[in-house]
Amino acid sequence: MTPAPDSNDPRVLRTRKDVLAQAMNILISEGWNALTHARVANQSGYSRATIYAHWPERFDLISDAFGQYQEMPHPQKTGDLETDLRGELTSFAQAMVEHRLDRVLASLAEHAQTTPEVVEIRQSFVAAGEAPMREILHDIVSGSKREAVVLMLCGMVSHSVLMHGKAPSRAVINSAVEIVLHGLAKK
Amino acid sequence: MTPAPDSNDPRVLRTRKDVLAQAMNILISEGWNALTHARVANQSGYSRATIYAHWPERFDLISDAFGQYQEMPHPQKTGDLETDLRGELTSFAQAMVEHRLDRVLASLAEHAQTTPEVVEIRQSFVAAGEAPMREILHDIVSGSKREAVVLMLCGMVSHSVLMHGKAPSRAVINSAVEIVLHGLAKK
Repeated sequence: MTPAPDSNDPRVLRTRKDVLAQAMNILISEGWNALTHARVANQSGYSRATIYAHWPERFDLISDAFGQYQEMPHPQKTGDLETDLRGELTSFAQAMVEHRLDRVLASLAEHAQTTPEVVEIRQSFVAAGEAPMREILHDIVSGSKREAVVLMLCGMVSHSVLMHGKAPSRAVINSAVEIVLHGLAKK
Repeated sequence: MTPAPDSNDPRVLRTRKDVLAQAMNILISEGWNALTHARVANQSGYSRATIYAHWPERFDLISDAFGQYQEMPHPQKTGDLETDLRGELTSFAQAMVEHRLDRVLASLAEHAQTTPEVVEIRQSFVAAGEAPMREILHDIVSGSKREAVVLMLCGMVSHSVLMHGKAPSRAVINSAVEIVLHGLAKK
């Protein structure tokens, strides 16, 4: 039996990082059901015993893989509302293509329907993804209006990708930001 | 071998309708992989030979099941833009709960990632679902602005359900419609 790994050891941290990146690659390229201890061991070149020592349960492994993946770069804030909203949405749309966020979100949506552990993973993943958008809007709008804006802007990207199979164009993103900001301006 | 069914016979039409409704129930309650000829025969009480005679391929069966399911009632248009947009979004949000549209959309999103036949099914399903919204907006806005509004409003509902696990509240729907209509008003 491999001993429980010391998570302060830099080599251990690197091992974990490597393995979790491989785990997300497996999810993206082979689908949710392929994301098992055995497949991750095989793909990453570590032993099954090592993988089990770090993540005794399959959902520990899945949860940590999403945790690492969600640490995606968001654009630096400029303080200009229109620029920051466009930047955040463009970055979200790009992640769909460059990091296959479309596959990741589709898997979360589908498996959260039937698996309570996935509901928790989705909740923390979505909260992390929406946080910069909520921060940008924090001082501008509140209550059900803020909720509406967050859902409309994030939903524009996720609906486009998950339901139409493509990211929204730059023109559509710019139009959406313009409509929302004009809509929020005082009458 | 069961002969190819005559699709003008009213009994045949009723059989097809029954079977397709059962097929969607299977998808909703047991998931995509359960939606097979064998399971549909078993669930609907018809023979496998009958199911194969109507739908020789699995994707014929799936495609027709979605085709029947998508014939959902949409609210009658009143001609008042705000009322009609609210009505359409409320009906969309209700379908998530009452007809488990959440499960249906999650399955489409997930399986379209890897299966080209599902991309086609999703395309026609989403086009049918969005059609009344596009019709309401047709004379009001065009081009990338219309696309932005359709994606934002439909996306508000689908993002809320697929990513947050709940339909948007009435207050959020009303705020979204208000922001969009104010945003589209001439400056």
